[in-house]
Amino acid sequence: MLLCDIGNTSYHFLEDEVDYKKDTLTFDPSSIKEEIHYICVNPKVKTILKGLENWIDISSKLDMSKYYETMGVDRMLASEAIENGIIIDAGSAVTVDIVKDGVFQGGFIYPGLNAMSNTYKNISSALDYPFNFEIELNKLPKNSVDAISYGYLKTLYSEVVSHDMDIILTGGDAKEFSKIFPDAKVDENLIFKGMKKIISRSSQNI
Amino acid sequence: MLLCDIGNTSYHFLEDEVDYKKDTLTFDPSSIKEEIHYICVNPKVKTILKGLENWIDISSKLDMSKYYETMGVDRMLASEAIENGIIIDAGSAVTVDIVKDGVFQGGFIYPGLNAMSNTYKNISSALDYPFNFEIELNKLPKNSVDAISYGYLKTLYSEVVSHDMDIILTGGDAKEFSKIFPDAKVDENLIFKGMKKIISRSSQNI
Repeated sequence: MLLCDIGNTSYHFLEDEVDYKKDTLTFDPSSIKEEIHYICVNPKVKTILKGLENWIDISSKLDMSKYYETMGVDRMLASEAIENGIIIDAGSAVTVDIVKDGVFQGGFIYPGLNAMSNTYKNISSALDYPFNFEIELNKLPKNSVDAISYGYLKTLYSEVVSHDMDIILTGGDAKEFSKIFPDAKVDENLIFKGMKKIISRSSQNI
Repeated sequence: MLLCDIGNTSYHFLEDEVDYKKDTLTFDPSSIKEEIHYICVNPKVKTILKGLENWIDISSKLDMSKYYETMGVDRMLASEAIENGIIIDAGSAVTVDIVKDGVFQGGFIYPGLNAMSNTYKNISSALDYPFNFEIELNKLPKNSVDAISYGYLKTLYSEVVSHDMDIILTGGDAKEFSKIFPDAKVDENLIFKGMKKIISRSSQNI
């Protein structure tokens, strides 16, 4: 089975147990001839894929009424993958979604690592530092690097742990964020798990 | 007594009990002939003021060893103004500083309203909304406006309230943020209070 999760910058494939990425600007999806199930949040790629018969959009098999209209389909699929927990998908944005007993409870959007780094830099050149992911979160900062790192990471941490649920980390920056959430389970294939679940459910219904 | 708190964009004056602002790009500080005490985080203005005898820099009267080297002097003066509490200074950055028994404990820096609004917009045009300060913080969002508003405001809220201290709000966006922190005391003249305290202390020491 071939799966693909398409974001703004890349096609993320899963073929059996191996995953790999291709650039959205250079990859030609018509080069794939076999049946492939996908989700896509990239409007340009979406249009191209609609013309390719072997590319099957999983979002059509999803019960959208459980979510909200403008929610990214990647967040929906990640939510489908779990029964209980708080999902942190750390990419260009950090999306945080809560699922209880298989039901999506709601979620929020926080800036991703690069976006937030630029934000501090643009406020003042005195805040142009890389974030310190080794920061001690129980200690109030007394230097500039830690003052912005705590501002970005501890605020997110305080909100996430206030829900007192299992934490699942996914997305390109999952490993960096696991330093802040040491008890979190890192699962880079969470969206693929959700996709497999939906495919298996819909094939049973046929 | 004439006081002035100079930031990147404006001179903020306090004359007796009346405060007013002047643009840093157009105001000529040599037009003031009387004695004036100031703090300044604006490097260009700092250089100009050094040449004016009646402009007295309060930071020289401050015990800097209580703070850290790269910390903004405005944060120091706000901290001097209180004995116990957590100060949120909501300007181009949101600085959050904690004081216990008159001693600065540390603090962090979070992006200001405009900066964070631009951050979301730059991540995706689908996130280009003004923040909803009327958001219910105990309810997980199920729409895009609330998803970013919660991401910006609830994370800050969760961190701030975790310290379980009196909250004092100051800065240009203090009133907006008081919707999120309804129990906070809004004091737009907090930095001036700190300045008065330092001046009075240093005059007693002469």
